[in-house]
Amino acid sequence: MYKTHNNGELRAQNINTEVTLSGWVQKIRDKGFMIWVDLRDRYGITQLIFDEERTPKEMMDKASTLGREFVIQVTGNVIERESKNPNIPTGDVEILVSKLTVLNSSLTPPFTIEDKTDGGDDLRMKYRYLDIRRKPVRNNLVFRHKVTMAVRNFLSEKDFIEVETPYLIKSTPEGARDFVVPSRMNEGQFYALPQSPQTFKQLLMIGGMDKYFQIVKCFRDEDLRADRQPEFTQIDCEMAFVEQEDILNTFEGLTRHLLKKINNVEIGDFPRMTYDEAMRRYGNDKPDIRFGMEFGELNAVAQHKDFNVFNSAELVAGIAVPGGNSYSRKEIDKLIDWVKRPQVGALGMVYVRCNEDGSYKSSVDKFYDQDDLAKWAEATGAKAGDLICVLSGEIHKTRTQLSALRMEMAERLELRKADEFAPLWVIDFPLLEWDEETNRYHAMHHPFTSPKPGQMELLKTNPGAVKANAYDLVLNGNEIGGGSIRIHDKETQSKMFDYLGFTPEEAKAQFGFLMDAFQYGAPPHGGIAFGLDRLVAILGGQETIRDFIAFPKNNAGRDVMIDAPAAIDKEQLKELNLQLTTKLQQ
Amino acid sequence: MYKTHNNGELRAQNINTEVTLSGWVQKIRDKGFMIWVDLRDRYGITQLIFDEERTPKEMMDKASTLGREFVIQVTGNVIERESKNPNIPTGDVEILVSKLTVLNSSLTPPFTIEDKTDGGDDLRMKYRYLDIRRKPVRNNLVFRHKVTMAVRNFLSEKDFIEVETPYLIKSTPEGARDFVVPSRMNEGQFYALPQSPQTFKQLLMIGGMDKYFQIVKCFRDEDLRADRQPEFTQIDCEMAFVEQEDILNTFEGLTRHLLKKINNVEIGDFPRMTYDEAMRRYGNDKPDIRFGMEFGELNAVAQHKDFNVFNSAELVAGIAVPGGNSYSRKEIDKLIDWVKRPQVGALGMVYVRCNEDGSYKSSVDKFYDQDDLAKWAEATGAKAGDLICVLSGEIHKTRTQLSALRMEMAERLELRKADEFAPLWVIDFPLLEWDEETNRYHAMHHPFTSPKPGQMELLKTNPGAVKANAYDLVLNGNEIGGGSIRIHDKETQSKMFDYLGFTPEEAKAQFGFLMDAFQYGAPPHGGIAFGLDRLVAILGGQETIRDFIAFPKNNAGRDVMIDAPAAIDKEQLKELNLQLTTKLQQ
Repeated sequence: MYKTHNNGELRAQNINTEVTLSGWVQKIRDKGFMIWVDLRDRYGITQLIFDEERTPKEMMDKASTLGREFVIQVTGNVIERESKNPNIPTGDVEILVSKLTVLNSSLTPPFTIEDKTDGGDDLRMKYRYLDIRRKPVRNNLVFRHKVTMAVRNFLSEKDFIEVETPYLIKSTPEGARDFVVPSRMNEGQFYALPQSPQTFKQLLMIGGMDKYFQIVKCFRDEDLRADRQPEFTQIDCEMAFVEQEDILNTFEGLTRHLLKKINNVEIGDFPRMTYDEAMRRYGNDKPDIRFGMEFGELNAVAQHKDFNVFNSAELVAGIAVPGGNSYSRKEIDKLIDWVKRPQVGALGMVYVRCNEDGSYKSSVDKFYDQDDLAKWAEATGAKAGDLICVLSGEIHKTRTQLSALRMEMAERLELRKADEFAPLWVIDFPLLEWDEETNRYHAMHHPFTSPKPGQMELLKTNPGAVKANAYDLVLNGNEIGGGSIRIHDKETQSKMFDYLGFTPEEAKAQFGFLMDAFQYGAPPHGGIAFGLDRLVAILGGQETIRDFIAFPKNNAGRDVMIDAPAAIDKEQLKELNLQLTTKLQQ
Repeated sequence: MYKTHNNGELRAQNINTEVTLSGWVQKIRDKGFMIWVDLRDRYGITQLIFDEERTPKEMMDKASTLGREFVIQVTGNVIERESKNPNIPTGDVEILVSKLTVLNSSLTPPFTIEDKTDGGDDLRMKYRYLDIRRKPVRNNLVFRHKVTMAVRNFLSEKDFIEVETPYLIKSTPEGARDFVVPSRMNEGQFYALPQSPQTFKQLLMIGGMDKYFQIVKCFRDEDLRADRQPEFTQIDCEMAFVEQEDILNTFEGLTRHLLKKINNVEIGDFPRMTYDEAMRRYGNDKPDIRFGMEFGELNAVAQHKDFNVFNSAELVAGIAVPGGNSYSRKEIDKLIDWVKRPQVGALGMVYVRCNEDGSYKSSVDKFYDQDDLAKWAEATGAKAGDLICVLSGEIHKTRTQLSALRMEMAERLELRKADEFAPLWVIDFPLLEWDEETNRYHAMHHPFTSPKPGQMELLKTNPGAVKANAYDLVLNGNEIGGGSIRIHDKETQSKMFDYLGFTPEEAKAQFGFLMDAFQYGAPPHGGIAFGLDRLVAILGGQETIRDFIAFPKNNAGRDVMIDAPAAIDKEQLKELNLQLTTKLQQ
């Protein structure tokens, strides 16, 4: 080893011992007669000292040539610091260096290796290996490791077995777009990278593995929205001989364990809410319930006057913004502009000031009297000093818009506290959702999700109303996990494929192996998958997953550090029996 | 839950309690008046009983319709068995069933779900989900899980951090062939799947992560030899500020821990042997040292007579097969045929019988006298009753052939005991190896391996003699891990690329990011990677990795269960700007 101790380790009790340390030069203060160097590694910082009186001249000279991020090894005596630094654990001591070896020099780094760096996102990504030297990034990676170890040990102790499923599988046009991998040995054929190990974990249940998990990379070739990655990590889980209640209890247990172990937060039973209720109360299937501002539905108390905007609306709904009465007219106008932005899409916003004296002042005083407005206040839970914001229109759009406003107000009012954790089960999801593009119903979760008992018949008459044995785990307004009880018999699965527009031939070609498997004693089973990147980010009090991934890709799916993807040799293409139809890059 | 207990859990103390069990019908014995059913799950087997006297008629009838692999749920009373079965942990009890629910029926499985099945390899792979129900396969997967948990917990406790590196990276023509992934968003460009996270783990060292590991899938598009998989799993490890000795100690510690925890075998310091010594003594860089039969070099004692075959040989070497003197002439002739098979490739074999009376009888008595043969016996360590087998020719070929013979004899003599573990470090590997095909030297390990100090100059004069800071961990004749101390400065790395035939442009295009990184304070570092599939198989007392992989591919790289790879939609190809140059599959 190039060291006897790490740089976060030495304390007052080590004074008068000789140690060898290695690390990076974080900072140099050169007073001529005295040179201090902060030496850094993963574990901390230790101060080195060289001085005219005690350090040989040639070592002083050598020390004065050190630069930021040089890699050095020093041997020296641990001595007491004259001016102690209570901000770091090693702040009582410093090393009087007796031997200095430069292990490697460094160019001046393109950005400062400090907690708050001067490097922009692009530069940090290009030199990600330098970014990782920064404490916040390093801590995130260590944090991620701790979370995954806690997950693995918890599940393993509960008799779950981690099984590795294959990465080179088969493409299925259903769902999101696959990344494909041309096969050289099987001419003209392709593997696909898994979007999830869904069918394999179901086969493991059929294989009797009973309690399975895997922390596994998954791949989706989607046009990347902000904070989406083409490769992402799931905690993938499945159990056999279970009902929905068993899955909820088991993984509520896992989540509670993580909150306790990682965040030292004790949380009792997680609340549960149906999808319909979540939509009605929060306009969102992943509501952040750390704060209120629940929706008040106002149809009954707003559609009895001559205000046509409301009368013609499918839904009139409002939220009470706490303390919002203090907003100036200008601030409220800005808020109206905000809801009218294309990203939100409201046509306008009605507001009601709730005065401290109990009276109301609204933007629709022409139509509504104080009694009407008092009823609005009651429905939205508004108190004196609040501002009621009311949107209206088509039911789903209005809910989505009001939900966006609710979240925006929570951000502005700092109600989304990073150290507060509010988990929530959202259950009874619809089995299908309408797809505007293809003009038909798609599986909301995936085609293996079972409908609620006795609802198969409803598929014919009112497909949108069919509910599934499907559930999401929501934490602080983010979906961190989702799953379902699966179909486990061939007949139901065939019907489902048929309903979703698969011909029997397509169903057989793509999922024949699964339907075959259902014929050989498939047990009832179900599961859940957690998005690890997001889970870790939220437990870490943040929401940007990229900060918790060692080598993330940018929004164009590129790794700018290694410059991938890239053109490949013609020879490689030829071996794969492929040619490009584009002239680019050739 | 569909059960209160699992099928491996009930004991005598549970007698007279009501339980609910679920699982698969393993076996039915129907005597008409009495029906016994063995109910199986992952945890074991519990016997169910239905009888005329105590079971209602309709349940008897239902029970008699059960078939193998039906999935059932039963409720009943735990009673004492009349004839106990001491071979299974639940053998003292049986369940008198009061409620029987068929959860799913089953077709007759294509092979028996027994420890020894009647299913051939192909059938078992096609119905792998049924194969996994068999105890040996299931136990292998559970065993694999235990090994990976032990690895993770050991390394984690030693401050190693598991960091996930990307799967979508960049193709490098050097080394084995990459699997590539066309990028839709970056027209005409491709990602590659990693053959190992080599460069990323080095970047993590440069990033200060100091102790890294990852259990990670790797990919190689090679023509598959028996027992190779296109996707395989590595325990990938790297450390900074270390020398070779530190890596050896750390991962010897890991291996010792596994042998103790998993196999309950205590092993002291692992022996070490240089590559040169391993080749000389065993003709193999991964010798199985559970048994002897070390090579005796016979040049000095066999090239002084008129036997031209030996006189013209670069190497004459032999092994002493214990007890081999008992072989008949016919058996020895068969052995000679064996070494002459094209897979071994020897031209012939000379043998010496070591008689019990101390005399020798050889196939070359015409040329050598008893004194000569006594010297051969001394050199090979042969004792009375042994058979000395001697091969000769070009040095490397002869060693390889004699090594094959040595292993074959060990198999026949059952010296390769599955429950005996003999680890060995092989060190000081050559930096380069000669490649017959391309007629030049290649990096034996990979181009990032550092040469031994002071040997860079030798590259010019005697490249084959340059030794590297490279080491393999060998267990029972299998390489289970290999690694090296890496180059960590740009200048040496450039020289190495230059030496290996990269133009500066190629080196920059492929590994520019790494050489850039070396300029910003790269610490000394090194590491090792274990082949998890093989490690698990060997710890499990077996050598076939396929038995320890849940869903392996066959020798053509196909998953015969899901039928992958497969043709993809024209639409998918078009989106990727690709077309096939073959007419197959379109």
